[in-house]
Parts: sequence; structure tokens; C-alpha cells
Amino acid sequence: MPRPVCAIVGSGEGLGASLARIFGEGGFDVAVMSRTPKGSAAALETARATGARAEYFAVDARDPAVMEGAFGPVEAALGPVEVLVYNVRGGLSFKAPLDTAPGELTDALQLEVVGAFAAARGVLPGMLARGRGTILFSSATAALRGSAKGLLYSTAKFGLRAVSQSLAKAYAAKGIHVVHVRLDCALDVPIVKAMMGDQYSKEKVANTDDVARSYLWVHQQPRSAWSNEVELRPHTEEWTI
Amino acid sequence: MPRPVCAIVGSGEGLGASLARIFGEGGFDVAVMSRTPKGSAAALETARATGARAEYFAVDARDPAVMEGAFGPVEAALGPVEVLVYNVRGGLSFKAPLDTAPGELTDALQLEVVGAFAAARGVLPGMLARGRGTILFSSATAALRGSAKGLLYSTAKFGLRAVSQSLAKAYAAKGIHVVHVRLDCALDVPIVKAMMGDQYSKEKVANTDDVARSYLWVHQQPRSAWSNEVELRPHTEEWTI
Amino acid sequence: MPRPVCAIVGSGEGLGASLARIFGEGGFDVAVMSRTPKGSAAALETARATGARAEYFAVDARDPAVMEGAFGPVEAALGPVEVLVYNVRGGLSFKAPLDTAPGELTDALQLEVVGAFAAARGVLPGMLARGRGTILFSSATAALRGSAKGLLYSTAKFGLRAVSQSLAKAYAAKGIHVVHVRLDCALDVPIVKAMMGDQYSKEKVANTDDVARSYLWVHQQPRSAWSNEVELRPHTEEWTI
Amino acid sequence: MPRPVCAIVGSGEGLGASLARIFGEGGFDVAVMSRTPKGSAAALETARATGARAEYFAVDARDPAVMEGAFGPVEAALGPVEVLVYNVRGGLSFKAPLDTAPGELTDALQLEVVGAFAAARGVLPGMLARGRGTILFSSATAALRGSAKGLLYSTAKFGLRAVSQSLAKAYAAKGIHVVHVRLDCALDVPIVKAMMGDQYSKEKVANTDDVARSYLWVHQQPRSAWSNEVELRPHTEEWTI
Repeated sequence: MPRPVCAIVGSGEGLGASLARIFGEGGFDVAVMSRTPKGSAAALETARATGARAEYFAVDARDPAVMEGAFGPVEAALGPVEVLVYNVRGGLSFKAPLDTAPGELTDALQLEVVGAFAAARGVLPGMLARGRGTILFSSATAALRGSAKGLLYSTAKFGLRAVSQSLAKAYAAKGIHVVHVRLDCALDVPIVKAMMGDQYSKEKVANTDDVARSYLWVHQQPRSAWSNEVELRPHTEEWTI
Repeated sequence: MPRPVCAIVGSGEGLGASLARIFGEGGFDVAVMSRTPKGSAAALETARATGARAEYFAVDARDPAVMEGAFGPVEAALGPVEVLVYNVRGGLSFKAPLDTAPGELTDALQLEVVGAFAAARGVLPGMLARGRGTILFSSATAALRGSAKGLLYSTAKFGLRAVSQSLAKAYAAKGIHVVHVRLDCALDVPIVKAMMGDQYSKEKVANTDDVARSYLWVHQQPRSAWSNEVELRPHTEEWTI
Repeated sequence: MPRPVCAIVGSGEGLGASLARIFGEGGFDVAVMSRTPKGSAAALETARATGARAEYFAVDARDPAVMEGAFGPVEAALGPVEVLVYNVRGGLSFKAPLDTAPGELTDALQLEVVGAFAAARGVLPGMLARGRGTILFSSATAALRGSAKGLLYSTAKFGLRAVSQSLAKAYAAKGIHVVHVRLDCALDVPIVKAMMGDQYSKEKVANTDDVARSYLWVHQQPRSAWSNEVELRPHTEEWTI
Repeated sequence: MPRPVCAIVGSGEGLGASLARIFGEGGFDVAVMSRTPKGSAAALETARATGARAEYFAVDARDPAVMEGAFGPVEAALGPVEVLVYNVRGGLSFKAPLDTAPGELTDALQLEVVGAFAAARGVLPGMLARGRGTILFSSATAALRGSAKGLLYSTAKFGLRAVSQSLAKAYAAKGIHVVHVRLDCALDVPIVKAMMGDQYSKEKVANTDDVARSYLWVHQQPRSAWSNEVELRPHTEEWTI
């Protein structure tokens, strides 16, 4: 009996690799999708170590046509996509609005909002034909509030949340589970660890395997009791909303 | 090795009984707590059918001192409370504000807000001493918006959400996981079925076992990636926020 | 031609007095209502200085029957209440939930939520008969999020917001404008100044006359374009939501 | 003494013309800015009828460089821009996500989000140099929730709200008042009247002059008590959030 397939767009060393591992352990075959094979090497390896079939597929999420068309090869190689995780993040760039060029905003929206929509469009027809499927968008608290230096980040995440809600409302009754995952935290990944310096402590950050476990759980929720917006934070996080 | 204990305040035939069953299946012993043994008979029986130890404890949640003190007998009989679910609901009464007496509002707040706070106070000292524990409040979308005929219901649920957030922020860093569960749906219970009449369909309502599974999952989340506010709805629900 | 009447429940030296002044200047006669005449002396004086008729009326907002019945004498003395401002605040008490007694929560809800509802009930029948009227509730950002030490404050303000929304939805179509005013700031009043000590600066706090001007404006909005929830903050405030 | 200048980008026959009139009556000279002079003729005429100086300026808001650079000629002709209203709306297009091309989403974001940001960038340096100025964005309830057929509309409005919040937080302390105006209603304009057909009634829609009055009021708020997010709806609106 074929295993279901989880496709992860944006499968780097941190959360991407954890998603590959946790879905692999959860019985999925895994498609890791990113711009270059190097970026996805860790995710590919960790997925295979769970016994899953796992393959790498090149995709440039900045081009909506490319993004939408990227799932044909995935399904040819591994079978129908049961779960899509859009885990793409642009380079985090925090600066004042007057130091931010309009073109940077265009690019951020294209990658994080239009790309997410295009990826969803790539898997939705098949999911609708099968009457089921889950689409998870990795997002952040910036989806709920702007900030003085985070115009790029929050505008992209606000937009992503609107896409997620709109897709959920359009297709839930047909069996498609669409989920906005708000990561209200710093992730325990090397880049964050470096940024935190002396302030780093395992207690303050979210373990990416732990985060990935809730992605899997939300996918497994029975359809009579779904969550469409999920928040995750470490127990030490001082949160506001 | 002793099993952890789940205490359910407001353990009627619907969600209360499902919580008793799902936590029983999940390895918990179960305390079912309500005003009269009759109301909790189904929950007690279903918990025991899972092989759990389960006991009934009388409590009147309208009296904060009684509510706060009710966990002494529970812990004496079953052991430390690992999970508290406050699942109490007043009689649903939808009517215009001018048809609603201030005393009714006082009563709703006393039962659904002060009672919830008192129950949390009853288990928190032990949980803090042990450095862990989960408190789940059953709530509703009415916690996020008022309505023309739902002043009693929404005011109580808004208040309950504030209690949940405040407790979460006060004690999360000490290991206490506090969760507001927003049931954005009608539950598949006899009273709702009767109210819906011809409109009833299994597809439109949330199965209470399915709902209870997410209560258990949230309790099981690793503490580096907790949710503090969870929403649950059937895939057919036409939701707004 | 008689002037319209503005009734201010909770009319102390700070915002209460400013409301009395600004509505007086705006052409209103003013009823200042509080527990003791001493607390309302400044509001009374400032209203009269504008040329308005102004009278003091004793009321204990903790007793809903007293609160609801308090407008008979007001209307007998001054005429129909066109605008009600419920500006009552309990003693601010910030402490951990386990240091907060359930009875304190009961008291806060009784004063700030049930009292607000009772005051609205006192003026609504007359307003509905006249097909117009405005009810403004002074609230805070605590109405939108709980906090580790603010359980009392936020639970009361959440509840107040639910009352405001429910009344607005019930009676707007009949001409009643109900408004939740979220003061996202410290007010420039003596008690705040004392608390801020060296940190005090006029730039950091909201001038109460300036705040009161938006109360008057919202009342004056034409009914084809009403606001039901208004936020006010100094331009220096570092806000989150 | 020179009159302050209000620049309105997107100044059609409906709200745009009302903004021109109300700000003209309020003592402003008016720059009406749109793609073609024909679209702005009514706004221009109504502004001049108030006695204001008013001029038309061509701008294509889809091109950020053009948009950002459009205020040079305005300031040369009329003087410094004190108030900017970004009132641009794309063609409303409601359809299912799978009937919506990614390129349509790119276009909507470019016009309604990037264009708004570019317009703000065009006036901000001058406003910051003068230490004051107001930027108002016309938005909608779609900024707060997605919908099954409104992916384009809500994604653009979510993004616009993030831009508004981010600008507000970045520059408020320097005297810049940035405001997201959520129009939670149908406007009383010919196209809406035609769409509503038999359902049209003056009571159900927002009069655009009445709406514009709150834009003017928010601009006039003293800076110790600003609103950054304003909602406006007719008293008959059945609102949810």
C-alpha cells in the first residue's frame, strides 16, 4: 500500500528538515523542494533516515508559474500530494520604511504571498478530486501586527494569512484543510542561535522537531474538528497576542 | 507506576463524556466533577470502560470557595491532577439586552468566569510545586465577538478568555500550560440535534470525541512549542474569524 | 430650546472632569454621577464654568438596581439623557493570579461589567423611545489581552467590551450609538504622574481634554458612518495591537 | 497665510469627491490624483466649489517610482502636503481561488499595497522635516478576514493594514499620524446602488460625505490622543468584528 506524500517547499536545515523527519516518521514519503539541492540536503537525508522514500525537486518559488507547475514531477515520482507545507521565508531584513525600497516589498510579496498561493494552486486540483488534503503555511506573529522596522516581514505575513483564510473558506467543505501556523517564537536553528549570542538558551527557543509535531497533528485532526489557525510558542515566551 | 489524573469540571453527556473517554484511553485516571452524580453518570461509565480508574466528585462551581477546595478529595482519591478541564456552561439563554436582568449577568460571570478562575486556583499550587500541568478552558467563538442576543454568553466567554490568557502569561514559564479552546461550532450532542431539527446533519456538527482528541493533543505538546489558544470547527463550518 | 444632557458616571478629577468640560463646551448640560459629591466636585465646577447647567447625582455603581434607577432623578432635573459615558474604574490592582482572591474578581466584574450594563439599561428605554442616543464606555487595551499581573483589570475590560459590542449590535439599527473607547495609554492625571516619577513627560501621556474631544466627536458622527470601537493613544505610545 | 494641502490619490466620483469637498470645506487646498483627468473631474469641481484651490495631477499608482515621485509637482503647485489620503481601489473581482490567476494577485498587491507604500514614501520626507502630517489609507473589513471568493480583495487589504501599522509605529513619535480606515460597509455610490438593485436603501449604505467627515476628524485629533485604526459603518450594518 502506497504511503501518502508530504511536499515541503522551503526545506532548509531548520524547520524544513524537522518537517521532513517528523512526517517521515509519521508514515509519509517526502518531497523536499527548494532552489538548490544543497539547501535541501539535510532535509533529504533526515527524511530517508526514517525509512521514507524522499526526493529533491528544484523550484524557484519567486516564479508563480514555475511554483504552480512544480508538483507534476513530484506526483509522477512519489504519488499524490496529501500534505503541502509552504515553509518559504525571504531573507529577514529589518529596517525603517524609508530605508526600504518599494521593489523590496514587491519581491517579498511575490515570494511569500503569491508564491504560497501558486503552490496551493498546484496541489488543489488533485486534492479536490480526491476529496481531501492539507495545506500548511509557516507564518509568524508578524501576521497579526506591523512593526517599526518590520514592514517587509509583516506585510508579507499579513498577506499570507489572508491567502490561508481565503483558501480555507473556499475549500474546507470539499475536504481541504488549510492552516496558518503562527510561529510566535524564535526557532532553535543555527542562525537564530548566532543572532542571540549570550542570550541564547534552549529554554527560550522552539525546538523545530517539537514545532513539526504540531504540523503533523493538525493534519491528523479529524475533519469534524479542525483548526485553521494554529499558534506555537515556547513556554518561556512573553507573548502579547 | 501511577497514572496521571485528568479532572473534568462539567462532565455531562456530551463533550464531558468524550473528554472522559479520550483521556481514559490516553492513559489518564479521571475525576468527573459536577453538581449531581446523575449528570456525570455517562462520563463516569465511559471513563471506566477504557480501563481507567474514575471517580465522581460533587462540586457546585457557582461557589468559588467550594470550587477551589474541590480538588483535595480528588487528589486524595486519585493522585495529583495533571490536567484540569473546565467545561462548565451555564444554561444558554439568548435574548435582547433589555430582556436580560443584571442579575443574570452576575450569575453567568460567577459560574463561567469566577468559577473557572477558582478551579484553576485549586490545582495551580500543586502544579507549580511539580513544575508542570495543563489547564484547558472550554470556550466558544462568542469569546471573540458580542451579538445582539448573546450578551450573557459572550460576556462570560470574553471574561473566560481573559482569565485564560492571564493565567497562561503568569505561569507558563513555570511549566503550566493554560489553553483557551474556542469551539467554533455546534457540537453533536442530543440538545443541539433537537434544536437543529431538519437542519441536523452529522457533517455540520463537531463530533465530541474528535474535539476531545485535540484537548489531549494540546496537553501532549512539548513545552518548547505550545498553543495557548486553540480553535476547533467542523470542515463544513462557515466561519468569519 | 433645551440643551441635550450628557450623564457621566464616574466623574473624578481626571478624564471625568475633562468630559464634563468638553461636553459642556459642546452645548450639553451635564449630570456628574459618583459615589460621593467630593469626588465629583471638580467635574461639577468645570462643567458650570462652561455655562452649562450641571448637577451632581449620587450613585453606587456596584449595585445594579441602584445604578439602573439612577437616571430618573437626572432626567427629572435636567431632561432626557442624550449621551451616557460610563467612566467607572475600580482600584487598579496588579498582582499574580494566586495573590488575587476570587472575590476580588467578582467585585471587579460587578462594578465594571454588570454596572456598565445596568447603567445602559437605565438610559436605553428613553433613548429607544426617542430613536437616538449615545452610550460610551471608557475602556483600555487590557480589553484585548490578558497579562501576568492584570487578571482583574483585563477580565473586567474584556467583559465590558463584550457588553459594548452586544448592546451596539442589538440597538444600532434603532438609532443607539454604543462605543467602546480603548484608552491605549496612560492618562495625564495626578495619580499617573506620581506613579511615573522621573519617567513622566507630557509627551508620553494622553491629555484628558484631548481624549474627551474624541468622545464628543464620536457622538457627533452622522449615523451613516459610525465607529463602535475607538482607540486613543499619544503619538509617542509604543503600541502592539 | 497659505492653506494646508490635502492630496487624494484615487479621487473618483464617490468617496474621492466627498473627501475633496469635506477637506476643502475644512480649509484645505486639494490635489486630486488619478490615472485620467476624467475620473477626477467631479472631485476637482466639488473641491473648487468650496472655495479651495484644487488641481488635478496624473499618476499611475501601479508604478511605485511614478507614485513616489508624484508629489513634487503637487508641492510645487500647491505647497507642502499636510494630509495624504490613499483611496485607490482595484477593480473588485470576487471569484474562487482556482479561478484567480497568480498574476491577478500580483497586480492587486502592486496597486493596493506597494502603491500605498510608495505614496507614503513620497510625502514622508517632507512631513518628517516639518514634524507633522497625516496619512490615511482607505481600507475595508476585508483587511481583517479572508473569504471564499475574496482572496484578491482581502489579501490586498491585509497587506495594506500591515503597511499602515508599520508606518504608524515607525513615525508616530516624529509627529506623523498614520491611519487605517476600515470601511465596514457599502458606500452610497452609483455602482453600489446598481449592484444592490431592489435591496438599495439610503439607510443601508454609508453616505460618502459622512465617511469623509471622520477622515477630517481623525486628522484633527490632537496628537496626545490619536486613533491609528478607525472603523466606520452605517447604523444599520450587521457587523461581526
